[in-house]
Amino acid sequence: MRSKLFSVLLALVTLSGALAAQPRTQTDSRSIQERLGYSESARLLVIHADDLGMNHSVNRATFEALEKGWITSASILVPCPWFPEVARWAKQHPDADLGIHLALTSEWTDLRWGPLSGATGAPSLVDDHGYLPLDTDVVARNAKPAEVESELQAQVDRARSAGIPITHFDMHMAGMVASPDLFAVYRKIGRQYELPKLLEVQGTHAAPAGVPVFPGEISVQRAITMEPGVDAKDWLKWYKQQLAPLGPGVYQLIVHLAYDDEEMRGATWNHPDWGAAWRQHDFDMVKSPEFRQFLKDQGFVLVHWKDLRKALPTNYGK
Amino acid sequence: MRSKLFSVLLALVTLSGALAAQPRTQTDSRSIQERLGYSESARLLVIHADDLGMNHSVNRATFEALEKGWITSASILVPCPWFPEVARWAKQHPDADLGIHLALTSEWTDLRWGPLSGATGAPSLVDDHGYLPLDTDVVARNAKPAEVESELQAQVDRARSAGIPITHFDMHMAGMVASPDLFAVYRKIGRQYELPKLLEVQGTHAAPAGVPVFPGEISVQRAITMEPGVDAKDWLKWYKQQLAPLGPGVYQLIVHLAYDDEEMRGATWNHPDWGAAWRQHDFDMVKSPEFRQFLKDQGFVLVHWKDLRKALPTNYGK
Repeated sequence: MRSKLFSVLLALVTLSGALAAQPRTQTDSRSIQERLGYSESARLLVIHADDLGMNHSVNRATFEALEKGWITSASILVPCPWFPEVARWAKQHPDADLGIHLALTSEWTDLRWGPLSGATGAPSLVDDHGYLPLDTDVVARNAKPAEVESELQAQVDRARSAGIPITHFDMHMAGMVASPDLFAVYRKIGRQYELPKLLEVQGTHAAPAGVPVFPGEISVQRAITMEPGVDAKDWLKWYKQQLAPLGPGVYQLIVHLAYDDEEMRGATWNHPDWGAAWRQHDFDMVKSPEFRQFLKDQGFVLVHWKDLRKALPTNYGK
Repeated sequence: MRSKLFSVLLALVTLSGALAAQPRTQTDSRSIQERLGYSESARLLVIHADDLGMNHSVNRATFEALEKGWITSASILVPCPWFPEVARWAKQHPDADLGIHLALTSEWTDLRWGPLSGATGAPSLVDDHGYLPLDTDVVARNAKPAEVESELQAQVDRARSAGIPITHFDMHMAGMVASPDLFAVYRKIGRQYELPKLLEVQGTHAAPAGVPVFPGEISVQRAITMEPGVDAKDWLKWYKQQLAPLGPGVYQLIVHLAYDDEEMRGATWNHPDWGAAWRQHDFDMVKSPEFRQFLKDQGFVLVHWKDLRKALPTNYGK
């Protein structure tokens, strides 16, 4: 059922793309998995950790998961205090698949970060305390596109100047699809650096309603990510139930890794969703032999964003 | 010996103050301890923790030490990521004696912070990576006084607007006495907010050589703080040896509190001086019954910066 629904949606998106005023010189009708050399029936999966750089607890867990191959990719919160640790680790792991987790929000109340542009440099991006706002709706309401573009370029440039060979873009708290204006900047950044960006056909990371997308812009059919309300004992089962029925295509499993330690509990004490215990559950899940075996049994092909980049249309950056 | 030396130095400083072009309408020749209602022979001691806000480990240890009365005062690194936790705690502890640890440096390599003004707003205050420089000498060489003043006012104003009733100023890594220009800003900020500032007669926190100070400007005769090279087993003994021979006057014991935990070890892994174990030693010291008893036996009067503020000359802010 699910895969049929996606086929229909994909056809609609392709149609809307054809109608949109997007430059398109290439009309490769093959699926992404085929363009990457896999069969049309293959199921490609990026296992991706968000929020790298947020703090040491997140970094420790995510570095280990990348080193052990439990995940294939991660994206970095550049304005966060522990970004320099990521830059140092990245130099020691030049093949690591790292993107930028473009950030316009700072969601915890005791540990916060501001824009690289500074409060005075980007007044529409900060709250009354000088930090990036707690939630995305505030950004969608207040952020001036020019300040967003300048701030996000600063985030990308800081990562690049730190020597990180970035492979993709995605977004903190779905910020870049929260309004047509924000999405326009997201698209522009992707083109400017000629890197793929997380964008799913429908769901949390889909383009804003009514905004046409062109087919080559969508690298991932669906992003699967834990939502509030799942009991700890059902964690692994929930992920299996999401992944097992997927049809052929490219998917991203988004996880949030950290230790349930003092530092992480301190940051998330009043927000159990995506909090310390949650992230420890995700960490336990990706490292568990049972989950590794499940992926193998299901025949998922684990891929990186640097692979998906190869499937970008040749005119993507134009 | 030590107290005689200080008496001589104090006389010299008083003389240099009289010669300096400082506005002075009050010539109260009494000692600070007398002006605060103590006998001339009293030894007043502020036990002060630096770096509050740096991270959760520092906050946890410092909050506990303040709550238990093991220390009497602390100062805040406003540009640091965990400043919001300090602001929340301060609201719950309105009597806590908190100052601003005016910051122009960011000394750890994996956990770093930038100026509130942003890299573009204060280009002379950042290094190539957009952070406050690793060491004070770089600041003394490059920082433009106008950018320093604006940045430090932003730090003070952020703390005040967060509702923190600040009692004093001091400086991260002795940054404000690293050059006559920086000291001029330090002095100006003190006057502007009519708050006392850490300034000792001689030593790490004394005015730059050749810069005259006026007597009311010096609230603390000497700041005692652990220096590299002391073995863990001699920690308490070293502090006792510093404190016991002090003559009458006002002193500040500067400690650096944190837990020797993953977060703190991650931040300080390549810099054992003032690192995780060091701060755990300081924490163990201030909480130890032996040290508490030593202070009692020695007759030290524990005071706060809000007390020292009362001894400021009436023309301090003019």
